[in-house]
Amino acid sequence: MNNYGDFYRGTRVLVTGGLGFIGLNSCARLLELGAEVTVLDNFEPTRPTPAYEAVRGHIRLAVADIRDSEKVERVVRDQQIILNLAGKSGAADSNKTPLNDLDVNCRGHLTILEACRTFNPQVTIVFPSSRLVYGKPRYLPVDELHPLAPESIYAAHKLAVENYHLIYGRLHGLKATVLRISNPYGPFQAGEGRSYGIANAFIQSAVCGTPISLFGDGSQRRDYLYIDDLVHGLLCSASVEAARGNIYNIGDGKGTSLMELAELALQAAGRGSIVQVPWPEEYRAIETGDYLSDITRAKEELGWQPVTEMGEGIRRTVESYL
Amino acid sequence: MNNYGDFYRGTRVLVTGGLGFIGLNSCARLLELGAEVTVLDNFEPTRPTPAYEAVRGHIRLAVADIRDSEKVERVVRDQQIILNLAGKSGAADSNKTPLNDLDVNCRGHLTILEACRTFNPQVTIVFPSSRLVYGKPRYLPVDELHPLAPESIYAAHKLAVENYHLIYGRLHGLKATVLRISNPYGPFQAGEGRSYGIANAFIQSAVCGTPISLFGDGSQRRDYLYIDDLVHGLLCSASVEAARGNIYNIGDGKGTSLMELAELALQAAGRGSIVQVPWPEEYRAIETGDYLSDITRAKEELGWQPVTEMGEGIRRTVESYL
Repeated sequence: MNNYGDFYRGTRVLVTGGLGFIGLNSCARLLELGAEVTVLDNFEPTRPTPAYEAVRGHIRLAVADIRDSEKVERVVRDQQIILNLAGKSGAADSNKTPLNDLDVNCRGHLTILEACRTFNPQVTIVFPSSRLVYGKPRYLPVDELHPLAPESIYAAHKLAVENYHLIYGRLHGLKATVLRISNPYGPFQAGEGRSYGIANAFIQSAVCGTPISLFGDGSQRRDYLYIDDLVHGLLCSASVEAARGNIYNIGDGKGTSLMELAELALQAAGRGSIVQVPWPEEYRAIETGDYLSDITRAKEELGWQPVTEMGEGIRRTVESYL
Repeated sequence: MNNYGDFYRGTRVLVTGGLGFIGLNSCARLLELGAEVTVLDNFEPTRPTPAYEAVRGHIRLAVADIRDSEKVERVVRDQQIILNLAGKSGAADSNKTPLNDLDVNCRGHLTILEACRTFNPQVTIVFPSSRLVYGKPRYLPVDELHPLAPESIYAAHKLAVENYHLIYGRLHGLKATVLRISNPYGPFQAGEGRSYGIANAFIQSAVCGTPISLFGDGSQRRDYLYIDDLVHGLLCSASVEAARGNIYNIGDGKGTSLMELAELALQAAGRGSIVQVPWPEEYRAIETGDYLSDITRAKEELGWQPVTEMGEGIRRTVESYL
């Protein structure tokens, strides 16, 4: 198993979108490992959260929109590694405002990559894409050669940005790696509703004692990845030479049904309830059916594997809400 | 073989990018078939060309940029079919000005599709993508299930726009079909240089008596598609119900080396010469190796197949330049 050794000690790492869920968790781990961390994000938190307070004062924060090329250019210049987490989430939203999704996700990432090409073409850059680029699975588990059929504008743009990274790698020398992430969950995920993370939404409902809404019979299986395992995947990717130019699935590799997830959340919270509701149209339209990652390639080439059991991950997440 | 019968008689067809190479050839054929043709393009030709003169007065011309949502909305309203040919060509160029390529090709096409969703969600729409979405072939001939690995920003955006069309089909009811075109050539291709069509560039050189530059040994094989066969493919796609939501390779299905192409051009022109030059870096970087389309699916499902022999196609193209 890859534990990076001293790889991150004194290493300059830029985390774009570093104040988001994955970003803050990545920063905390990078600081533990002795990295010099810069965060690029488009806001400074007004209400201090525990996750932000834990890294504040230890990171350098650059407040800028990723579409602001001048500011982006200044920030990328001296970095050795970029965890390129910036962007707008939300598959259902993207179908309502496709032009906005295009602007933030595609124009924003091209702006970052153009800045790297000009000012830092040797940088190592890791881009977390989404399992949604596969669309409805034709077989399970889904490996990296599975056909690509994005079912939302968000997923179409994730695929475009994947390709940007790989193209800039081939044409301009960036050391780029793409990860296709399953469904991350864990402490510090912002409470932005279910489109941003169904596991956290369920856990929050349970903790608050409000009923968990299950669409249909709750039998849909998903691949839920605990945040620490995801951060570990990001850090493995940036530290492994052989990862350059490649795409890896990063998931739990085990399936859990929504019903099982809801029950685990109730158990861990010690309260709450479940209600079954009909599928809302906007979710039904982009529902991709059961999903399970084949993570063989990441295990073999990155020396990475998830270590957190679902029950344990949910317990830790419940604690973070209490 | 599909010959549409009376399908196009009196049918309202919008051709976006209708004043380009594929557009003008499509318009001429649609007029022959009795369609009511509207062209949306971002310029009115200042120098009348024979191709434009042939359709002028018989088409309705709307001059507007595809990013101009108000004008686009007015034009798409009453159409039954859209041949969605608009966009910026040039893979090598796109890598130099990726943000411009994004704006024209992605934002432009999202603007068209948003207008259709709002004002004409039942429209039949055909989008010609490119064989470049496949990248370097892993096997030949390349079928529609071949892995996707675009090697230029142009190709990454073609893939994004493919996905837009299919997503708008699934979510909003548009009857969308995607074609992956090989290398089209034929009369009326604008003389914009080799990045827009190597076959025409060679033929033009031969006709003018200037030497044809072959990169390397000229052994690279490509799939050259005569324009009439391509137009036939577009018209088949829009007329076949079973094509909705599908992707088809449209190519010649036979490989021709660049050296053979150059020799055919010299023969047809009765003059000219060949010089072999080293690969320019910007072309080497995006060179995808031999390419050959597997067109089985289009033959079976669209009732389409190419009928023009390469020698005949080149002779007709030479005549158009004389």
